[in-house]
Amino acid sequence: MKTFNITPTNKEFITKISHKINNLTKPIGSLGTLEIIAQKLCLIQETLSPKLTKPTMVVFAGDHGIVNNHPVSSCPQEVTPQMVFNFLAGGAGINVFCKQHGFNLSVVDAGVNFDFNYDEIPNLINAKIAKGTKDYTLEPAMTEEQCKKAFETSGEIITQKFNTGCNVISFGEMGIGNTSSSSLLMSCVTKIPIENCIGRGAGLTDEALQNKINVLSNAQKTHGISENPWVNMQNFGGFEIAMMAGAMLKAAELKMVVLIDGFIATSALLIAQQINKNVLDYCLFSHVSNEQGHIKMLEFLNATPVLHLALRLGEGTGAAIAYPIIQSAEIMINQMASFESAGVVNPAE
Amino acid sequence: MKTFNITPTNKEFITKISHKINNLTKPIGSLGTLEIIAQKLCLIQETLSPKLTKPTMVVFAGDHGIVNNHPVSSCPQEVTPQMVFNFLAGGAGINVFCKQHGFNLSVVDAGVNFDFNYDEIPNLINAKIAKGTKDYTLEPAMTEEQCKKAFETSGEIITQKFNTGCNVISFGEMGIGNTSSSSLLMSCVTKIPIENCIGRGAGLTDEALQNKINVLSNAQKTHGISENPWVNMQNFGGFEIAMMAGAMLKAAELKMVVLIDGFIATSALLIAQQINKNVLDYCLFSHVSNEQGHIKMLEFLNATPVLHLALRLGEGTGAAIAYPIIQSAEIMINQMASFESAGVVNPAE
Repeated sequence: MKTFNITPTNKEFITKISHKINNLTKPIGSLGTLEIIAQKLCLIQETLSPKLTKPTMVVFAGDHGIVNNHPVSSCPQEVTPQMVFNFLAGGAGINVFCKQHGFNLSVVDAGVNFDFNYDEIPNLINAKIAKGTKDYTLEPAMTEEQCKKAFETSGEIITQKFNTGCNVISFGEMGIGNTSSSSLLMSCVTKIPIENCIGRGAGLTDEALQNKINVLSNAQKTHGISENPWVNMQNFGGFEIAMMAGAMLKAAELKMVVLIDGFIATSALLIAQQINKNVLDYCLFSHVSNEQGHIKMLEFLNATPVLHLALRLGEGTGAAIAYPIIQSAEIMINQMASFESAGVVNPAE
Repeated sequence: MKTFNITPTNKEFITKISHKINNLTKPIGSLGTLEIIAQKLCLIQETLSPKLTKPTMVVFAGDHGIVNNHPVSSCPQEVTPQMVFNFLAGGAGINVFCKQHGFNLSVVDAGVNFDFNYDEIPNLINAKIAKGTKDYTLEPAMTEEQCKKAFETSGEIITQKFNTGCNVISFGEMGIGNTSSSSLLMSCVTKIPIENCIGRGAGLTDEALQNKINVLSNAQKTHGISENPWVNMQNFGGFEIAMMAGAMLKAAELKMVVLIDGFIATSALLIAQQINKNVLDYCLFSHVSNEQGHIKMLEFLNATPVLHLALRLGEGTGAAIAYPIIQSAEIMINQMASFESAGVVNPAE
């Protein structure tokens, strides 16, 4: 399968970065997480003056065969294309938060079970692999060929974004049933028992949640857990999740800052970091979701989220909402005066 | 002493607000804290379409007599005027974050132990009560008259801001030694033992922290804990803290959104809410500080902070950094499509 050539960041540079941050006019460490973010931006861009340019959000939409046979979601499948139209019309959460922070927003049909008239909606990128995945309670969700195509296609999309001058990117998703795929992928990678990886998604009742646990436990028994991330993705993944994973790997290859959204985006990253662990050097974790498995994913990755806002909307909204905090870190290291330049006594000296 | 006429918000309006929020194109509750913030904005402004206008940050600077006799801070007192000059020159943390988010920033000399040439620095508001408070290990920090003047003066400043069209305001501070005052005020209001209200401030060593605990415990024994918030403020408060408390009460009287910063700002609010508890209806809590007492203050107030970024810089920086999240809540309720308008199936119906 496809390989990715991702350069690890140079950790020896941290001494110089810390020296700059510790000489800004503030008590050492007093800007907390902002200082950690600024350090990562410096490492990724190999500079003491990082700049974020043309922030971009790519939302991948895809459907899941399982929802045709099992009520694992509180929403009907028709909501996937309806929300795609909402994205295109500018009315969804991701639209308003992208607009707030100057994000370029692209919407990709990764595999929605709907016949879009692409000619009439040029804003929708046609990358459809198929009209939804197969029901993984019966057979693998996708073929090896489809999985490979998903990774390649999203890589091409991300390269296009990079070529416009974008160096900070995030990925959102829409797909009724996709928390089920994410829970299964999470269990494959983290080895946490599947029942502890499953949450309420858009809002399941207690009874429906128990049914989701039963259905997904059986699906895991059917396919087993592979040590090969590609096989797990083929068995359980959505097309939108496979595209997110490929997009993250390509973005890291291009040394972009990758802002990770919530539960589903992080499940894509779990697979991506099995393919090439260096991808993690390029990731910032925007928030911890209220979908119960997400905090365990972050713990597995030893990742500290920027926001704790009990979000669980998806679409990339958490990443977009967190973006100004990333910008604050960039602004801190570029614009704050040093003790010396401001003529302030440095209590650490 | 001065009274404040603060109208409680109308909680009966919550039903209408929830109806609007629950019909936006997202699973119910899925924007978490943003939904709670949006509700508060609606309550404060008595509208379903709240608007934030001319965000303003007022930083109050003052000195503390105690630092002349006891090393309760890791910084020398001269850092207070040095940082005021840094604010005026635009190089401090609060400058760069205010600039990022379009805040109008004003700096007030509430009582710095320095002779500013106000004619040459018109950007500094001269509201000096005295050149620092008295050392409260020996006598009350300020007189009743000084305390009253601090509340009145800041009230006038805030009224001026309101008259420019500002409806969202926050308050920062600068004053070497002011975490000591805040710890004492916190203990007076919350009844938490003083040793549990004390932290490292700008960065005390273990030994210096123990000395701070000893000094402040003795100060508390000297003056005792009053049931009268004015008396506690006179005994222990800084001029900048008294001005912040007065500013919060006046802003609430004017029905402004009040964004509360960290440990010192929250200590001012603890006093303010004893004077008039309705002030809390107008407050949003921007972050939980790394100064260890702050989380206990928030628990006492039953307040949920927006950010958890381990900040402990002061100056109002936490509030400024949190502001885009408040804006996201405003944008959510004003700009997101409803299920009906977007033609999306509402799974809750």
